[in-house]
Amino acid sequence: MVLRLDHGDPDFADRFAAFLTTKREVSADVDADVRAIIDAVRQRGDDALHDFTLRFDGLDTRAAGLSVAAADIEAAYEALDPDLRAALHFAHDRIASHHRRQLPGNDRYQDALGVDLGTRWTAVEAVGLYVPGGTASYPSSVLMNAVPARVAGVERIVMVVPARQGELNPVVLAAAKIAGIDEIYRVGGAQAVAALAYGTQTIAPVSKIVGPGNAWVAAAKRQVFGTVGIDMIAGPSEVLVMADGDNDPDWIAADLLAQAEHDAGAQSILMTPDRDFAEAVAAAVERQLAMLPRAETARRSWLDFGAIILVPDWPTAIPLVNRIAAEHLEIATADPEQWVDHIRNAGAIFLGRHTPEVIGDYVGGSNHVLPTARSARFSSGLSVLDYMKRTSILKLGPEQLRQLAPAAIALAEAEGLKAHARSVAIRLNLEDRE
Amino acid sequence: MVLRLDHGDPDFADRFAAFLTTKREVSADVDADVRAIIDAVRQRGDDALHDFTLRFDGLDTRAAGLSVAAADIEAAYEALDPDLRAALHFAHDRIASHHRRQLPGNDRYQDALGVDLGTRWTAVEAVGLYVPGGTASYPSSVLMNAVPARVAGVERIVMVVPARQGELNPVVLAAAKIAGIDEIYRVGGAQAVAALAYGTQTIAPVSKIVGPGNAWVAAAKRQVFGTVGIDMIAGPSEVLVMADGDNDPDWIAADLLAQAEHDAGAQSILMTPDRDFAEAVAAAVERQLAMLPRAETARRSWLDFGAIILVPDWPTAIPLVNRIAAEHLEIATADPEQWVDHIRNAGAIFLGRHTPEVIGDYVGGSNHVLPTARSARFSSGLSVLDYMKRTSILKLGPEQLRQLAPAAIALAEAEGLKAHARSVAIRLNLEDRE
Repeated sequence: MVLRLDHGDPDFADRFAAFLTTKREVSADVDADVRAIIDAVRQRGDDALHDFTLRFDGLDTRAAGLSVAAADIEAAYEALDPDLRAALHFAHDRIASHHRRQLPGNDRYQDALGVDLGTRWTAVEAVGLYVPGGTASYPSSVLMNAVPARVAGVERIVMVVPARQGELNPVVLAAAKIAGIDEIYRVGGAQAVAALAYGTQTIAPVSKIVGPGNAWVAAAKRQVFGTVGIDMIAGPSEVLVMADGDNDPDWIAADLLAQAEHDAGAQSILMTPDRDFAEAVAAAVERQLAMLPRAETARRSWLDFGAIILVPDWPTAIPLVNRIAAEHLEIATADPEQWVDHIRNAGAIFLGRHTPEVIGDYVGGSNHVLPTARSARFSSGLSVLDYMKRTSILKLGPEQLRQLAPAAIALAEAEGLKAHARSVAIRLNLEDRE
Repeated sequence: MVLRLDHGDPDFADRFAAFLTTKREVSADVDADVRAIIDAVRQRGDDALHDFTLRFDGLDTRAAGLSVAAADIEAAYEALDPDLRAALHFAHDRIASHHRRQLPGNDRYQDALGVDLGTRWTAVEAVGLYVPGGTASYPSSVLMNAVPARVAGVERIVMVVPARQGELNPVVLAAAKIAGIDEIYRVGGAQAVAALAYGTQTIAPVSKIVGPGNAWVAAAKRQVFGTVGIDMIAGPSEVLVMADGDNDPDWIAADLLAQAEHDAGAQSILMTPDRDFAEAVAAAVERQLAMLPRAETARRSWLDFGAIILVPDWPTAIPLVNRIAAEHLEIATADPEQWVDHIRNAGAIFLGRHTPEVIGDYVGGSNHVLPTARSARFSSGLSVLDYMKRTSILKLGPEQLRQLAPAAIALAEAEGLKAHARSVAIRLNLEDRE
C-alpha cells in the first residue's frame, strides 16, 4: 500500500520530517573506475575512446569513425514519421520562443561619484551535451538542453551519445538537427565526458558539459568540474499534486503515474483535503497501472516512494508544499492562482485542471530540466543563464580614484594587505616610497 | 626570475599552453576526516560542535556559548576606529547600491495560443556564511557575501566563524552588523558547515552555504552539496594586467604585488607590447617587494606563478587574454574601451590607468567573489542571482491543452512513455480506457 500521511495524526510532524529525508537513489561508487577512464583519455586521446567504445558499447569506432556523418543526421531526420517530425519542430519553436525571453540585459552606468560600472553577459563559447543511450535516450531532452544554449549564443554545441552495437536513436538525431547541432560523436560514458573536458585528436574540448547520464557519467562530470563547468546532477524525478475533490480521480492518477513510470526512484505525491477523493485516486492508480507497459517501474516507484498526504485545508498545506520543494508542482484546485504567490520552493508550477505536468516535459515552452530532491529550495531549472556568464566592469578617472581611495586604503590596512593599500596610494602619491 | 613568454618565440604556442595548465594549489585530501566530522555533528549536534571547537580552536563553547551575543557585536562596532567604520559603511552602501541593479524581474505572459507562461524569482530562505578565522578573516568578504543575500531578500543570514582561543576579529563583527547579520556562531571548520547543512539544537539548518574557507571547509561544502546549495569553491586569486609602455612601471608593479601578497598560489601576469616597460616593471616589483610585510608570500607567488607575456600588439593579445580567462583583468592602455567588447572571458575588467583592481576588492561596488582558475570561461562572480531561484509557471485552459496535446502525445509515444501520453490524452477523452 502507498504511504498515507494525515496532518491530523498526532505523529504527523515526525512522519512528515522522516518522509522528507527519504533517500530515493543509491549511486554506485564508481569514482576509481571513472578516474582511470579519464586518465586514459587524457593520455591516449582517440585511442582510448576507441578502446572503451569497443569494450563498453560493442562498437568499433576505428572502423565506423567517432563522428556521426551529416548525411546520417539528415537521413534520420528525413525518415522520421512526419507527425513526429512536426511535433519536434513544434516543441523546438515553443522552447526557443520562451527561452528568448530569458536573455539578460547588459548594464552600464555612472553613479553619483562619476564611477563607471557595468555588467556584461557573454555566452559560453563551447558546450558539450551528453545524451544517454538506450531507453533513456530522450529527444525532448536534446531540445531542452540545446535550445537554451543556442538562444544564449553558444557557437559550438557538441553532442556525445553512446551507440550500443552501433545503434543510434534516429529521433535523437532528428532532434539534434532541429536544434542546429551538427557535431555529434558516437561515444558515451565517462570516456565521452573526459573527451569533452580535455579534448582528443578528434574532439576539441568544450567549456561546459550538460545533460543527464548514468552513475559513470555523473561521477565523470563531478571529476572534471573545475576544468569545465557542469550543470546540476539530476536525481530521480518527482511530482507533487495539490488536488481538491472536484478533480477527476483518473486524471490525477494519470499524472502521478506519468511521473512514476520514469524510474523506480521517482516520486509521486498527492496532497488533498478530501479523504474520499484520495482513496478514489489510489484506486484509479491501481486500475491504470494494469494498462502500462512500464507498470513494474511505476508500481515500484508508487509503492516505495509515493505518498498521499491529507491536509485540513490549503493554507495549512502551503508550508508543507514549500518544505517538499518539489521539482514539479501541480495545483489542481479551484482558483489555483491564489496559491501561486505563497509557493516559495518549486522547480515548476502547473496551474489548473488542464495543465498536466507532461505538457511541460515536451511542449509548454519552459524547460524540463528542473531541480530535484528538494533542491528547488536553492536552485533553478535550466535556462539561458546557464550558458552565459557575467563580467563586471569598473572604470575610474583620477577624481573618482581620489574619492574612493581613503576607504579602500583603510580597509586594506585593516586586513593587513599592505600591497593592496600601496596599489591605490601610489597613484595618488600617497604611499611611502621609502 | 619570473617566467617570460614572448609571442615571437617559435615555441610560444606550446609554452603558453603549458602555462595555462599550471596547477597552483594542492588541496590536502581530508575527505575521510571531514566525513567523520559531518557524521558526528549529524548524530550528536551541539555536543559534537562543543567537542570539535574545544579540540580545534581551543575554545570551550560549553562555557562560552556557541552564539555571539548581540552586545558583543555592538561593542565591536562601537569600539572601531571611526575612519575604518566609515570605510565599512561606504563600502557597504556602494555594494548594496550596485547589487540592487541585479535584481531580476518576473515575467508572466500569454503566447499566441493563449498559453500562460511565467518565470518567477524568489529568494533562498536561509543562507549560511562561512568566515575563516585568523589572517584570512576579511571584513570585506563579509560584505561581499552578505550584501547580495540581503538585497536578494534572504530573510535569515547566519554567520559562522572560528574563534581560536576565543578571539574574534572585531572588524568582522562590525562588518556583520553593518550587513545586518545578527545570528553569529563561534564555530568553524567542517563542523560549522555540517551544522549549517543539517542543523543542531542551537543552529537551525540553512538552504545554502557560501564563503571562503580552508581545505576542510571546501571538502565539507562539497560533501553537503545537494542537501544544501553551495557557492563556487574559489582557488587562489589572479590578475592579468594589459599595460602599454605609457604606464608608470611602479603603478603596475604595485598591482601585480597586490595580487601576489594574497597567497603563494596567487598569480600575477603582465601582458605588454613593450619590452623595456616589461623589464622596468620587473625591476619595480623587486624594489617594492622589499617594502612589503608579506614579501615572502608575494615573492613566492611572483616567482612560482607570475609571468610577463610580450605581445606584438593588442589585437594579437586578445585571444590570449580570452584563453587565460583571468579572475581580474586590468586594461591599462590608451583608450581601453576599444578592447572591452573583444574580451569574452574575465571575471571582472578594470579599465584605465586609474582603476587598480584593489578598488574592486573593497569599494567599487561590484563583487569581489569572482571565478578563478580560468573558470570565467563558464562561470560568473557572486551576484544577487546566487541567492535567488527561478520557478517556471505554466497554465493551460481546455482549448490550449487541445492545441498542445497532439505534439505532446506524439513525443511521449516516441519516448516510450505511455503514462505520459495518457496523462494528456485522458483529459481530452483521447485515451484507450480499455
